[in-house]
Amino acid sequence: MSLVIVGSLAFDTIETPTERKERIIGGSCSFAALAASYFTSPQIVAVIGEDFPQEFISLLNRRGVDTRGVTREPGKTFHWEGRYGDDPNQRTTIRTELNVFQDFKPRLLQDYAAADIVFLGNIDPELQEDIRRQAQKPRLVAMDTINLWINTKPEALVRVLKEVDIFFANDEEVRMITDELNLIKAGKKLLSMGPSLAVIKKGEHGALLVGEEFMFGVMAYPCETVIDPTGAGDSFAGAFLGYLDRTGSFRPEDFRMAAAYGSVLASFTIEDFSVERLKDISAQEIEDRLQALRGLVSF
Amino acid sequence: MSLVIVGSLAFDTIETPTERKERIIGGSCSFAALAASYFTSPQIVAVIGEDFPQEFISLLNRRGVDTRGVTREPGKTFHWEGRYGDDPNQRTTIRTELNVFQDFKPRLLQDYAAADIVFLGNIDPELQEDIRRQAQKPRLVAMDTINLWINTKPEALVRVLKEVDIFFANDEEVRMITDELNLIKAGKKLLSMGPSLAVIKKGEHGALLVGEEFMFGVMAYPCETVIDPTGAGDSFAGAFLGYLDRTGSFRPEDFRMAAAYGSVLASFTIEDFSVERLKDISAQEIEDRLQALRGLVSF
Repeated sequence: MSLVIVGSLAFDTIETPTERKERIIGGSCSFAALAASYFTSPQIVAVIGEDFPQEFISLLNRRGVDTRGVTREPGKTFHWEGRYGDDPNQRTTIRTELNVFQDFKPRLLQDYAAADIVFLGNIDPELQEDIRRQAQKPRLVAMDTINLWINTKPEALVRVLKEVDIFFANDEEVRMITDELNLIKAGKKLLSMGPSLAVIKKGEHGALLVGEEFMFGVMAYPCETVIDPTGAGDSFAGAFLGYLDRTGSFRPEDFRMAAAYGSVLASFTIEDFSVERLKDISAQEIEDRLQALRGLVSF
Repeated sequence: MSLVIVGSLAFDTIETPTERKERIIGGSCSFAALAASYFTSPQIVAVIGEDFPQEFISLLNRRGVDTRGVTREPGKTFHWEGRYGDDPNQRTTIRTELNVFQDFKPRLLQDYAAADIVFLGNIDPELQEDIRRQAQKPRLVAMDTINLWINTKPEALVRVLKEVDIFFANDEEVRMITDELNLIKAGKKLLSMGPSLAVIKKGEHGALLVGEEFMFGVMAYPCETVIDPTGAGDSFAGAFLGYLDRTGSFRPEDFRMAAAYGSVLASFTIEDFSVERLKDISAQEIEDRLQALRGLVSF
C-alpha cells in the first residue's frame, strides 16, 4: 500500500499564555506525515521557500517519509501566526503569510499518482480537486478543510466532497457546511454529500466517526500537559490514514482502530511545541497509550 | 441497600427555538428520582407548594419512589424559567422564583437517616451540610452543585466537599471551583478537596470520572432528537447512584457501569420535555442503549 499526503510545510509563530515561539516548524503536512510515519512510509507533496530548513526534510527522510514531491521555490515559506488563550481550545489567527504557498500548484509525481490512499490536506478546494484528478486509481481518498474555504469557496468544496471517501473536519466546520447543529445529523448529512465516512474532530473531546453503517466515538487521550495544540488534528488524520495504509483494509473495525491511533498520536503532538514530540516516539509508548485509551472507555 | 435523594420538585417554564412549555414538571429531584427508579426504590426529600400536582407524586409512587419525605407547604412551588438557543447546550435563566423552596429545611425521616447512599442534590451547601450530618452512617455520600453556590457560598461548599465521596458537577463548574482549565488536573485537584471520585459532566460530550486510581470517560449516548436538555445531568446522577444502590459495590468497575447507565438515562430525558420520557422506559430499551453505547466506543 502507499499513502500520498498533500498539504503545507510551514513556519508557525505561536503565542501561548506563557511562551512565544517564533518560526517553528508547522504546517498540516509536517504533522500528518510525521504521525503517519509511525505506521507507513508516506509520500508528501508540498512547497517550501528558500528559508525552510533542509534539516527538517532530512528528519522526514530519516523517518521514512518520501519527500521527492516537495518543491523549493524562490521566496519565503508559508508563515502562520496564532495565539492561544488560557483555554488551549481558543485560537486566534494573528497573521497568515502565504508566500510561496500562494502559487502552489501541487503535482503528483508519476509513482505518487498510483497511490492507494490520497490525503488532500487542508488547502484550496480547487487544488484538492486538481490533485484528486491526478490520482489514477486510489482505493481511498480523504480530505480535510477549514472555515476559510467553507466561506470563500463553497462550490468547489462541495465538488471535492463528492469525490472523496473520508471527510475530516472539526465540529464547528461540520456544522457550518451542513447547517445542522446536531453532530450526528450533521455527520449523516455529510454522507449524503459524497463521503462514506465523516470524521468529526472535537478537540479535547475526541472525535466522532459517522459512517454508513456504524458510528464510533473516540475520546482524546487525557493529557495533563497541553503545551501547544497546533497540529493535533493533522496528526490525528496522519496517524489515521497511516494506520489504514498499513492494514490495507477499510472495514468499520479498521476505522475504529485508525481513530484510536489518531487520538494517541495527537496526544503526543500537543505535549510540546511544533513537531518536537513527534520526532521520536517509541512503538511501546504508542501501544501503551492505545491500551490506556482502551482502558479509559471500557465498561 | 437504600438511596436518599434530596433536591427540588419544581415547575419549569422552558423555551426552545421552536416551542414554549409553561409550568411543566422539573427540578433536580424529579429527574434524579425517576432515573434512579429504574434501578432501585429511592427515598426523596423535597418541598412542594399548594399548586404542585398530586398526580406527579402518585406517578413517583407507582415507580417505587418513597415520597414520605416530601412536604407540602403553604404557597407556590419553586419555579424556574429558562431558554435554550439553537445550540441546546446554551441555556439562559430568565427567572427563578424560589417560593416555598426559600424556607426549605430538609429533614431526613428516621428511616431515611439510615440510608446507605445519600445524594445531596443541587441546593444551598449549608443545607447540604445539615443533611450530611443527619445521615447516620452512610456508605456513600454524593453531591451536586451549580455556579450560584460556587459564587455565593464558596466556604460552605468547600466544607461539604470534605464530607462527600462523590462530587458531580459540569466542566465549567469544576473549572471555577478548582481554578484549573485542564479537566484532568481539575479532577485531581477536586480529589484533594475531599471526594474520592469527581464526576465531571460535559453535556453532549459525555462525562469524565476522575478517581484516586482510575479514570473513565463515557460518551453521551448519541441522540439525533434533542428536544429539551433540562434534567440530563440530574438523570445522569440519579441513574448513577441508583445503579450503585442496586449493586451495593463501589469498585472502579461499578462506577464505570454506573456512568454508562447515567449516560443512557440522560439520553432518554433529553428526547422530550420535562420528565415525559422518563415515565415509562422498558428494561429492554435501557439495555439496548447500554449495548449501543458500548458498541460506540469499542475498538
